[in-house]
Amino acid sequence: MSHTVGADPEPPSGPRPPEKTRILLSVPAAESEAFFPPETRRALAALGEVTEAEPETLHTPEAFRSALAGVHVLVTAWGFPRLDAERLALAPDLRFVMHAASSLHWLVGDDFWETGIPVSQAGAAMAPAVAELSLSFTLSLLRRTHRYDHALRRGADWQTARGVRKAREIRGARIGVVGASRTGRRYIEACRALGAEVRVHDPYLAEIDPLAPLAAALPSLLPWCDVLAVHAPATDETSGMIGADEIASLKDGGLVVNTARSSVIDMDALFDAVASDRIDAALDVFDDEPLPAGDRWRSLPNVLLTPHIAGATSDSRRRAGRIVVDEIRRHLTGEPLEHAVTRQAMESMA
Amino acid sequence: MSHTVGADPEPPSGPRPPEKTRILLSVPAAESEAFFPPETRRALAALGEVTEAEPETLHTPEAFRSALAGVHVLVTAWGFPRLDAERLALAPDLRFVMHAASSLHWLVGDDFWETGIPVSQAGAAMAPAVAELSLSFTLSLLRRTHRYDHALRRGADWQTARGVRKAREIRGARIGVVGASRTGRRYIEACRALGAEVRVHDPYLAEIDPLAPLAAALPSLLPWCDVLAVHAPATDETSGMIGADEIASLKDGGLVVNTARSSVIDMDALFDAVASDRIDAALDVFDDEPLPAGDRWRSLPNVLLTPHIAGATSDSRRRAGRIVVDEIRRHLTGEPLEHAVTRQAMESMA
Repeated sequence: MSHTVGADPEPPSGPRPPEKTRILLSVPAAESEAFFPPETRRALAALGEVTEAEPETLHTPEAFRSALAGVHVLVTAWGFPRLDAERLALAPDLRFVMHAASSLHWLVGDDFWETGIPVSQAGAAMAPAVAELSLSFTLSLLRRTHRYDHALRRGADWQTARGVRKAREIRGARIGVVGASRTGRRYIEACRALGAEVRVHDPYLAEIDPLAPLAAALPSLLPWCDVLAVHAPATDETSGMIGADEIASLKDGGLVVNTARSSVIDMDALFDAVASDRIDAALDVFDDEPLPAGDRWRSLPNVLLTPHIAGATSDSRRRAGRIVVDEIRRHLTGEPLEHAVTRQAMESMA
Repeated sequence: MSHTVGADPEPPSGPRPPEKTRILLSVPAAESEAFFPPETRRALAALGEVTEAEPETLHTPEAFRSALAGVHVLVTAWGFPRLDAERLALAPDLRFVMHAASSLHWLVGDDFWETGIPVSQAGAAMAPAVAELSLSFTLSLLRRTHRYDHALRRGADWQTARGVRKAREIRGARIGVVGASRTGRRYIEACRALGAEVRVHDPYLAEIDPLAPLAAALPSLLPWCDVLAVHAPATDETSGMIGADEIASLKDGGLVVNTARSSVIDMDALFDAVASDRIDAALDVFDDEPLPAGDRWRSLPNVLLTPHIAGATSDSRRRAGRIVVDEIRRHLTGEPLEHAVTRQAMESMA
């Protein structure tokens, strides 16, 4: 099911492309309004003729060909068919792919890169949201709210519920960050604003980086920190970076926060440390997603769980929608893209 | 059971009282080490001869008389017998009461005030801890981590768990604070550092107060805010201040945080709003404490619960211990106390 969104009767002033651009907006209907509230939708409609299609309906060649016919600019988020050679042949007019979300691995590969079509993504919109969830996790673990809450829900008596290891404040807490990513930097800024002492491990940190004075090697970071927060991308290099030995070197009572990707951590080793009550954890990401109904993580009292929603705030969606509009405008007017992704860059991205 | 703590063989230099002061330290043994780690204990021992007694053991007149014999300075926290006329008569040498915790209502009353004995408390130590828990609650509710966590623990499937109302970031969120208390001020500072927009209701806010530009009357604050955070003391004036009408005027999806005292809120009205899924809440305080095993609050999915631990961090206890030592030193050397409580002041305190 696709329909045409009429152009605004009085489009806002601004640069207009020389010819009528056809834009296919294919983000899940459930998220479309969040990405494109009325003012953003009007700005998008001012850039061309916008058609909307539910990504799930485009997985047959016929539906794909029909939806992509004459389309110059494609806007994706989740659930869109992979842009392999076969599908690209069905989209002969495609000149730009604008991804409203972050990860592109599932959408584009070698076939796509060979076309030379530029691609951009709105991952920058998510960084503040992910950093804030990581901060929320950090405060919850330090204050042991997850343990208190779980104990009171289990029906524990008041004194038993209160009898957890004493809570810690973030002011003065030692926070070890793995990955000076966009998200990691936001998180570090917030933690320091609240008085935490931060060190960061990132092998790619330049000497002139403002975070360089906080740099620490992993073997010294791990036994030092009260909280270990993961903000590294999922790459071959980071896979299993926090393994059994690394987890063993965290302090007793250490806290682990992961809002990045589960592959950075050996989740079996982390599970054992959490199940043995030595470590508490707050996790937004898991090896098995969707997390099965009876998954082992669901029943531990000393873990705080969310279903991979770190980037999914209403604020983040709105920011992504604005990035989409701005990047399409840049593409159409020949300005440099601000969020373009290259083949090489994608390999070091989450 | 009481025992004498030996004075340090080489006491730190500093002012010493002209005569040997007898100090009775009567805080619960489970908390004694948290309040008085070795360095603080040494500083206390340098001020006089310190005897320690478990407060629970002092509720008989004989035990009380024996423990208080010759005592000049009494240090309390919880569980100490009320200082009524009968008990005061058994402590003829008492010259100063230093309360290591906050609320004094249960400890001192008219009988005590008539003696003219000065009393001081370490409530200032708790403000940062309470403010941080309130911040942690605020982030959790905005990001709906409590709902996600509870859903995953209940065994909800992944998509159902994710299908809660979209989360909000604190940056740009509207936070309504009731009470520009010491704690409220700390909380406001942290929320603003993270980008929130804050307004505050406090009838006693002076025009020259730095917070005066944020002042708002309750009727305009309530429908405006995304989060309502209570930081007002429990007094006759604040009792039931947030009643059924006030709760009804909060937005749909509004969030309520209370780390102060439950009496400020009509808890029946709040319960109805939370149970109907219109409002989410994070609560550290309840009308019935200890919260009974089958209490209605324990089973709602959209509430985050902690057992009145807002002030109870290890950092807070350490700060309180240092305040205790500093105030006793001031008392002994004739400096003005920094945390003295008067009869009049106590009436407007939590």
